[in-house]
Amino acid sequence: MNILVTGGLGFIGSHTTIELIKNNHSVIIADNLINSKIEVLDKLSIITGIKPTFYQIDVTNEAKLEEIFVKHKIDGVIHFAGLKAVGESVSKPLEYYYSNLVSTMLLSKMCVKYGVNKFVFSSSATVYGEQEPPLKEDMELKKTTNPYGETKAMSERILTDTAKANDDFSVSLLRYFNPVGAHESGLIGEDPNGIPNNLMPFVTKVAKGQLEKLSVFGNDYDTIDGTGVRDYIHVVDLAKGHVKAIENLEKGVNIYNLGTGRGTSVLELVNAFMKVNDINVPYEIVGRRPGDIATCYADASKAEKELGWKAELGIEEMVRDAWKFEQNNK
Amino acid sequence: MNILVTGGLGFIGSHTTIELIKNNHSVIIADNLINSKIEVLDKLSIITGIKPTFYQIDVTNEAKLEEIFVKHKIDGVIHFAGLKAVGESVSKPLEYYYSNLVSTMLLSKMCVKYGVNKFVFSSSATVYGEQEPPLKEDMELKKTTNPYGETKAMSERILTDTAKANDDFSVSLLRYFNPVGAHESGLIGEDPNGIPNNLMPFVTKVAKGQLEKLSVFGNDYDTIDGTGVRDYIHVVDLAKGHVKAIENLEKGVNIYNLGTGRGTSVLELVNAFMKVNDINVPYEIVGRRPGDIATCYADASKAEKELGWKAELGIEEMVRDAWKFEQNNK
Repeated sequence: MNILVTGGLGFIGSHTTIELIKNNHSVIIADNLINSKIEVLDKLSIITGIKPTFYQIDVTNEAKLEEIFVKHKIDGVIHFAGLKAVGESVSKPLEYYYSNLVSTMLLSKMCVKYGVNKFVFSSSATVYGEQEPPLKEDMELKKTTNPYGETKAMSERILTDTAKANDDFSVSLLRYFNPVGAHESGLIGEDPNGIPNNLMPFVTKVAKGQLEKLSVFGNDYDTIDGTGVRDYIHVVDLAKGHVKAIENLEKGVNIYNLGTGRGTSVLELVNAFMKVNDINVPYEIVGRRPGDIATCYADASKAEKELGWKAELGIEEMVRDAWKFEQNNK
Repeated sequence: MNILVTGGLGFIGSHTTIELIKNNHSVIIADNLINSKIEVLDKLSIITGIKPTFYQIDVTNEAKLEEIFVKHKIDGVIHFAGLKAVGESVSKPLEYYYSNLVSTMLLSKMCVKYGVNKFVFSSSATVYGEQEPPLKEDMELKKTTNPYGETKAMSERILTDTAKANDDFSVSLLRYFNPVGAHESGLIGEDPNGIPNNLMPFVTKVAKGQLEKLSVFGNDYDTIDGTGVRDYIHVVDLAKGHVKAIENLEKGVNIYNLGTGRGTSVLELVNAFMKVNDINVPYEIVGRRPGDIATCYADASKAEKELGWKAELGIEEMVRDAWKFEQNNK
């Protein structure tokens, strides 16, 4: 298939591009380079032996987006492009709503207009709101706690209504849990600008000495060691889930959790990182962060049953590959 | 105040323009004329003695919208512009999401950019989803049943998050129940294109002989006579509510139901119409319409307490003024 991957030079998009190429699909990348680097394109070539077609465009630019649909016979879209920092979304909500909603609406419009009937959307477990785990796809969604999460919930709704109105448009909504790790080559990985928002890149920056110490937000949660428990998933497993989702897309609206189904606490992750990589990561316990919940993990059985996909890599591979990438990353 | 009224030539927008002018505000209208007619502008002049400034623009056009903010010192925005047919929103969801969300986002952006700190939004009781009446502003919102309603719920959320992020931006979300009636002059009223979606314009078209008979969707609901019960509100009362809302806008996010707090059944409304206007309206009972609920009415006490506003006109005025307008309307 010819697959348009928006945000294809970003963390999850780049790993998905590799898995698509390994499965003999052609990839066209659209990326505005706001949260990604052009060097990733060369690294994708090194890893796969194939250089994907690349357009530096913002997918909220309708005219430029349409040029891609005119020029290429596209069979499916995997839509990663979007702003993704939770904290920033609270202070700049209009930028988040505009970027993340307009991109989804225009891509859907182009798919309907040009007869592209496969759409895979990069959603998030945050759409569940605060609910008791394990989280299942058929749960009613609760109020999201920040604009970033709300853009994911709104995009899901827009895509669902579009699929209901258009028999020839099918969609898969992939709700990610906590993607970490990096490609085993060490060439690509998570490389956020500025101070990382997520735990793993923060840990690797501390291990590398670029940040002094890790702040652990709260150790008084009702969990195994008091720190927050999340369902970490290796980004390569996640990428493989996208290939399965677009290759096995059923007619209509499909929703899948992409997680491992297992929870790991902050301290368990940090200790695994130190042990596997034989390096110290100084940390201190600080107060809880507003909006954080104690425990979140997936019921991952639906994707296994319907897509034949399940996460295969564990915490050891996640911390090993994250550190390998950080050491390579200048 | 200088108030920008989007959709100011539409049904509710035009009546609100009159009440704003009567209360010594200056009105700038932005309307794309898709669901309204330019003749309404002249009628507003006849009724008020003042011709509002008018721009024929689509408020999803950022450059044209910005020209208005550059040219005028705007003190507040009342945002009515939007697509509003529930049934059509199901078949054309992307048009509804795009128009109704992008307009709200761009208007908010302009307000923040140009220091306009008062924003009144035309929302709907449909955002409550299916809940037991009376509906109160502090109820948690349930899943909406169609894309039109969802655009209202999403716009409320976008405006709420914008106000939370910007201390100088305050918003009033006005949740309308069922606006009917017309201006007492008979010059302006509800004038939908094609077959009306709402009950009252359907009734008036049948009374006028333009449509053969009224279809009443279901008489087996658990209500006084088996037909659906709604909270009808005279559009002039509704318009006055907007003036109160923008004149008394409290800092932050304000939510008000604009309804009467009383329910009226379809047959009660039709019978009142026939009696007050002394004209026959043939009707037949047909099956229920998907998505309709039995009973919906407001708890209207919050607007009375905080804004000093309550609906003053009753069903008799509503059916009288609706018919007067229809007779005048060529």
